[in-house]
Amino acid sequence: MNNHIKVGMLGIGNIGKGTYLALEMNHDKILDTTGFDIEIVRILNRSPEKDRGIDIPKEKYTPDVREILEDPEIDIVVELIGGIEPATEYMAEAIRNGKSVVTANKAAIAANGKYLAELAQEHHVLLRFEAAVAGGIPILTSLTTALLSNRFSEVHGILNGTTNYILTQMSEYGKDYDEVLKDAQRKGFAEADPTADVEGLDAANKLSILISLIFGMGIAPDKIPTQGITSIGLEDINYAKEAGYSIKLLASAKESDGKMSCSVEPTMLRKNHPIASVSNEFNAVFVKGNAVDNLMFYGRGAGPLPTGSAVLGDIIGIARKLGKASAYDIVPQLRYDAKLELNVDAESKYYVRMTVAERPGVLGKITTLFGYYDISVEAIQQKAPYESNGERVATLIFILFEVGRSKLKYALDEALKLDTTKSIDNIIRVEE
Amino acid sequence: MNNHIKVGMLGIGNIGKGTYLALEMNHDKILDTTGFDIEIVRILNRSPEKDRGIDIPKEKYTPDVREILEDPEIDIVVELIGGIEPATEYMAEAIRNGKSVVTANKAAIAANGKYLAELAQEHHVLLRFEAAVAGGIPILTSLTTALLSNRFSEVHGILNGTTNYILTQMSEYGKDYDEVLKDAQRKGFAEADPTADVEGLDAANKLSILISLIFGMGIAPDKIPTQGITSIGLEDINYAKEAGYSIKLLASAKESDGKMSCSVEPTMLRKNHPIASVSNEFNAVFVKGNAVDNLMFYGRGAGPLPTGSAVLGDIIGIARKLGKASAYDIVPQLRYDAKLELNVDAESKYYVRMTVAERPGVLGKITTLFGYYDISVEAIQQKAPYESNGERVATLIFILFEVGRSKLKYALDEALKLDTTKSIDNIIRVEE
Repeated sequence: MNNHIKVGMLGIGNIGKGTYLALEMNHDKILDTTGFDIEIVRILNRSPEKDRGIDIPKEKYTPDVREILEDPEIDIVVELIGGIEPATEYMAEAIRNGKSVVTANKAAIAANGKYLAELAQEHHVLLRFEAAVAGGIPILTSLTTALLSNRFSEVHGILNGTTNYILTQMSEYGKDYDEVLKDAQRKGFAEADPTADVEGLDAANKLSILISLIFGMGIAPDKIPTQGITSIGLEDINYAKEAGYSIKLLASAKESDGKMSCSVEPTMLRKNHPIASVSNEFNAVFVKGNAVDNLMFYGRGAGPLPTGSAVLGDIIGIARKLGKASAYDIVPQLRYDAKLELNVDAESKYYVRMTVAERPGVLGKITTLFGYYDISVEAIQQKAPYESNGERVATLIFILFEVGRSKLKYALDEALKLDTTKSIDNIIRVEE
Repeated sequence: MNNHIKVGMLGIGNIGKGTYLALEMNHDKILDTTGFDIEIVRILNRSPEKDRGIDIPKEKYTPDVREILEDPEIDIVVELIGGIEPATEYMAEAIRNGKSVVTANKAAIAANGKYLAELAQEHHVLLRFEAAVAGGIPILTSLTTALLSNRFSEVHGILNGTTNYILTQMSEYGKDYDEVLKDAQRKGFAEADPTADVEGLDAANKLSILISLIFGMGIAPDKIPTQGITSIGLEDINYAKEAGYSIKLLASAKESDGKMSCSVEPTMLRKNHPIASVSNEFNAVFVKGNAVDNLMFYGRGAGPLPTGSAVLGDIIGIARKLGKASAYDIVPQLRYDAKLELNVDAESKYYVRMTVAERPGVLGKITTLFGYYDISVEAIQQKAPYESNGERVATLIFILFEVGRSKLKYALDEALKLDTTKSIDNIIRVEE
């Protein structure tokens, strides 16, 4: 059973629930792909009576953190309490007891990452925190594996979903800050006390971690020049739009000539910058490496399941380093044994362009024919007719609702047999 | 010296040169971060007299592939010849001789990945091919590490830079296919014989690899329904634009109800889809996981250095698995020892919004003051004046050229002392 990975989890809030659910959903896939049988064996929960809307066997709960930190059976402790203390002390205690640690806690890592990293090194255990920066986006893993061969000169991120949601809604619907904030709070995208988000402190914690990773430089979050979004008015947003910019709360760090500059602040970005079009609660991280050049990651920076995905990724990464079941790791990528059927006739919307004789009744013939094949038409456009080989012809463009490829082909073969159809000029799939 | 990783490279074309250069640029960073001293000790080059525009010691070259495949000193063979044979046979031979293999060869992996993977497993060596799909974008590494805890239901990619460049140029400049193709060939974005790119075959190879990774299903590239871009006319592109779509050569695979559908074909994508705004030679891969939800990677899918970055990432990954210098791996991420200075006054363009009395000469006073501080003005906009506290006031918006934060602050403090200045309403950094 050396591929049985026993996890103790501190905290069962949103991220804890997301991690538990993501493991329930994908336990078998992970086992199948890596050989690791991951189990969350114990969960710190000081209010076990509280209904958390998730079905977890009561016997996994303990109100006593010692039962996790000191359990010799537990391989990995996942810290999801949040805040600097007691989270840091719990992680340190787990490390001292020979356990590897996974955390989603940006504040604790930004404040005490150096201390915890050195402690882990001393005790020959591992420390991972992918979920602490940009939620489900695998930025830390990528920077420290596939992209490690680069020197990076800059990083820019939309690292806070709440503020990006607010700025997007202000820009798209012309609503002012207070109105959008209240709406975000109702929808659960902003907390009752939104200070850490809207003042940029959350993003500064994450940027501090990225700076350490990318530039090898320690800078405390409160030393990063930080400006929130509370002063952004509709005047600013409208001016930016007119001038071809988007305003984003950007966390940035740049190096040049041995100097590193950084900030978290509202920034006008040209509309054609890949980050400018990242909207609502989505996050993005843009880096520029000296080999890989420009690279951007886009995804969900928060939410129970996306963050749970990152926590589980770290657990798997640690299990691999622990050398358990490593035979599965030689070529984990390629598999050919799925019991999937190939669907050669998946349905899709389609765009069809054809040339027809410009005569009364032509359109009716074709739409009747589509109807016969049970193909619905979403839109039709007829372009100005022109002369071709002594005959008046016109271009017809159809957008067709979902239809299988082969049925569409039969129908268009029939359409081509009509004496009024000159040619089928193009067929392009449409993806919403 | 067990952290000295000796690499033999087959081929010194564009990717070979990029890998060599990327290693030259970043050898010390890799050594410093991982403890691995990576050296390319031998390079297969059958025309050593040909000037390749890169300074490589002649003694590294060999015209004899045996001198690499059979050299017991070489740990890792990097295959960069391209094409299915003899590349596959060389890789197989390297594996049989106990060497791990890195390749950028999508055709060989799509055709023979299963054979090579099983051979590697049998011989307890590793096989990696991050560079074979989407160049420098770390999609394969992410799917098999940080994202491994997900089941994926769909993948969509712009996996070919040549065709994306052509479609972008057609759309942006209204040029037709033949004209843009010739232009792309002149600029080196398209090959003399562009068939593999424009007919979608290159993308089909890459999609076949992604399908194996994501769905565990083997499908030969020539079994993927594939349609190129040669039939796309300006009529189609213009219609798409009017209707709010972009046409992209999309490689897609979706799973639902135990059926997998896939294709490489021109596809109309709604403008607000994150892939729709990926332009020119850039690539992107979009995946949807059951925990992480929507995720997109964007970057350079080709080019010597970006592809070299991926090859080096694989070499480092293999070195780690080989268990060399693994002490460095415990917490490789956080470092705080960089000799960087913190630049608290980096220069940037700024947007400044202020309220001033609407009187002749006000604008002159402020611009004179900016001039005194050597701050240049890119643009000024005055909004319609209005009444405030019995006085006519107006909003002034300035876009200022690069200036340091503290100098800007001094200047604005002075501007606020003018009796005509009512308030400085907002200061926002501008990033081009």
